[in-house]
Amino acid sequence: MSEQYDPLASVQAAGPPGTISFVYGLPDPDTFPVQELCDCLGEVLRRRASLALQYGPEQGYGPLIDYLRAWIGREENLHLERPQMMVTGGSAPTLDLICTLLTRAGDRVLVEAPTYHESLKLLRDHRLVPCQVPTDAHGVIPDALSERLEQLWSGGECARMLYLIPSFQNPSGVTLTLERRREIVALARQHRLLIVEDDVYRELAEPGVVPASLYALGSELTLRLGSFSKLLAPGLRLGWLIGPPTLVRRIYDCGVRNMSGGWNPLIANAIAAYCQKGLLEPHLSQIRGVYQDRRRAMLEALEAYMPPGTEWTRPNGGFFVWLSLPGAMGSAATVARARKKSVLVLPGDPFFAESPTGQYFRLAFSYVEPDQIHNGIRILGEVLAAG
Amino acid sequence: MSEQYDPLASVQAAGPPGTISFVYGLPDPDTFPVQELCDCLGEVLRRRASLALQYGPEQGYGPLIDYLRAWIGREENLHLERPQMMVTGGSAPTLDLICTLLTRAGDRVLVEAPTYHESLKLLRDHRLVPCQVPTDAHGVIPDALSERLEQLWSGGECARMLYLIPSFQNPSGVTLTLERRREIVALARQHRLLIVEDDVYRELAEPGVVPASLYALGSELTLRLGSFSKLLAPGLRLGWLIGPPTLVRRIYDCGVRNMSGGWNPLIANAIAAYCQKGLLEPHLSQIRGVYQDRRRAMLEALEAYMPPGTEWTRPNGGFFVWLSLPGAMGSAATVARARKKSVLVLPGDPFFAESPTGQYFRLAFSYVEPDQIHNGIRILGEVLAAG
Repeated sequence: MSEQYDPLASVQAAGPPGTISFVYGLPDPDTFPVQELCDCLGEVLRRRASLALQYGPEQGYGPLIDYLRAWIGREENLHLERPQMMVTGGSAPTLDLICTLLTRAGDRVLVEAPTYHESLKLLRDHRLVPCQVPTDAHGVIPDALSERLEQLWSGGECARMLYLIPSFQNPSGVTLTLERRREIVALARQHRLLIVEDDVYRELAEPGVVPASLYALGSELTLRLGSFSKLLAPGLRLGWLIGPPTLVRRIYDCGVRNMSGGWNPLIANAIAAYCQKGLLEPHLSQIRGVYQDRRRAMLEALEAYMPPGTEWTRPNGGFFVWLSLPGAMGSAATVARARKKSVLVLPGDPFFAESPTGQYFRLAFSYVEPDQIHNGIRILGEVLAAG
Repeated sequence: MSEQYDPLASVQAAGPPGTISFVYGLPDPDTFPVQELCDCLGEVLRRRASLALQYGPEQGYGPLIDYLRAWIGREENLHLERPQMMVTGGSAPTLDLICTLLTRAGDRVLVEAPTYHESLKLLRDHRLVPCQVPTDAHGVIPDALSERLEQLWSGGECARMLYLIPSFQNPSGVTLTLERRREIVALARQHRLLIVEDDVYRELAEPGVVPASLYALGSELTLRLGSFSKLLAPGLRLGWLIGPPTLVRRIYDCGVRNMSGGWNPLIANAIAAYCQKGLLEPHLSQIRGVYQDRRRAMLEALEAYMPPGTEWTRPNGGFFVWLSLPGAMGSAATVARARKKSVLVLPGDPFFAESPTGQYFRLAFSYVEPDQIHNGIRILGEVLAAG
């Protein structure tokens, strides 16, 4: 841009020029299918503007729902009917509406430790109380979940919802194993918990890499959030919801949707056209390579440059690696020292609903070129070694 | 469309083919500036796709905020700075977020009787309790508001918010007078009420027709909702919020916005381009004529065909007329009899938060051609005369 720098005209900044930023899990703008989206928008406006620019049906544009249920059904061997799905404005506003409609202030919501810090903020905006459950390299620990549920119950509290990011988790990158998914669904059934499955990184992996979704294992109690933000582009603000028909209907047949109709009809029409042309799956094959290269670069660089005692997760997809510092080394001080060397990382404390330990970082590799990942992690290694 | 009929691929239906529907306040799709929007989307995608398709700043795209504050400031002789504004996804999701962030379940919200029924549903989705205040041909009655506030207070309840549609109200079409606006703001100050001013029809009138906004009269306690839905097209899902900087910041710096960035960045960028080209004001001049013609046709037809004892409002803008039936004639039975003659009207009961009287209709004229308005109201007159 030739214009003068204006933060409100800029992206949610990855970092100032000259820095290497591992802060934000932004998709790489070079992967955005700009020309194809432009063509589809043009086509929709030429052919059916009076439909696409009008208030749309609350559940979303039917042909897009049909594409999604066929595609997701095929990938995961699921049979999905229209009443099980709706088009949304992405995972965040859907989680927001779920909280408004299906929870009450003061309700306990079980979350992973760590979990996505902005989801914690959203839950707290609804005056919900996030309660954390420990995780390890295989995801959230079922025995710990069971224990926390019993503890809440015996303390007179009732947990309402379980919010999980089971695939390539934000911030840890970890994927919940199939066995644990089964145990979690069994626990949710036993405790009458609603599961919210925030699954926006799944389709960035080849089909079959991620185990069956929690929705596939417990379709009667799971609301699964999907999004085009990582698959196409975040600025489109479009996603989908899969869930039990009665709850899906409760979510689209509410005041805000009755007032404003379906989410983003013009964009939904354009993405339907894009999908119907068969463009989505080849696009995904292509961008998978981009993020795989960055993930490999990140894991190789960590192996090469991290000092002894440092530990990190080894995700096989997604945008993030989670790093823990040796012994008493604090992440806040390290973040400050790395910043002086123009490397930006995000401290881990905000990702804990309770009792942060000051010992973690999140490293986002999605927005950084492989050679810059290498440079940045080398510098971070030097900072840690000097610490 | 040549496709088979599919309600989810259709608009939020105005009514089946062959009917004359006064049900929905839909803008006329022939007014949508399709080619210009298409050009602006194309331009944005050619020039700054990596910005417009990425997560955007939570407050919204700065150049659009700058256009809006200059334009609205000029029309209403207000000085607006960036911290007083944000870009939104339209008035409904903004009201939704206001309820989440600034109210608590059980809070009393004062509303007009009648008011927009879907807003009532939205408030109830948040477990808020709408309390109605009578209106007349000059809008909500300040003495009645004062009385209701005292009554709530002496009953141990505290009203939190006052939700008003002061210009060409939905459903009544009535505009609140300047004198009453001043009294309402004074009462809000006295009772520490937050005013939510849902003002999405104002710009459909020539500047100067509508009195000063509640925001202009009480900028420290008013959140004013604006929208492009009626000005450009609802399928864009874009609007704006004006309010005190601390509250505006609370609304954009929240979990759902931190997660998903600003509302609809691609569309916001395209509308900014549209506005910067100077296209908005000439477009408004043109569509004002369309809706004025329909309003005149509606008022003339009512004058010509309504039986004695029927009364109606005489709006000077907006999309709606509110009609009351003589004596004991019920609106539910009349709606059914009109439907048999292929004329669709919306009964008035859902527009009352409390104590509906079964005596009213809302007539939306925005989506109906003048000759069809004439035919439809003639048929409705016959139905009423036969009743």
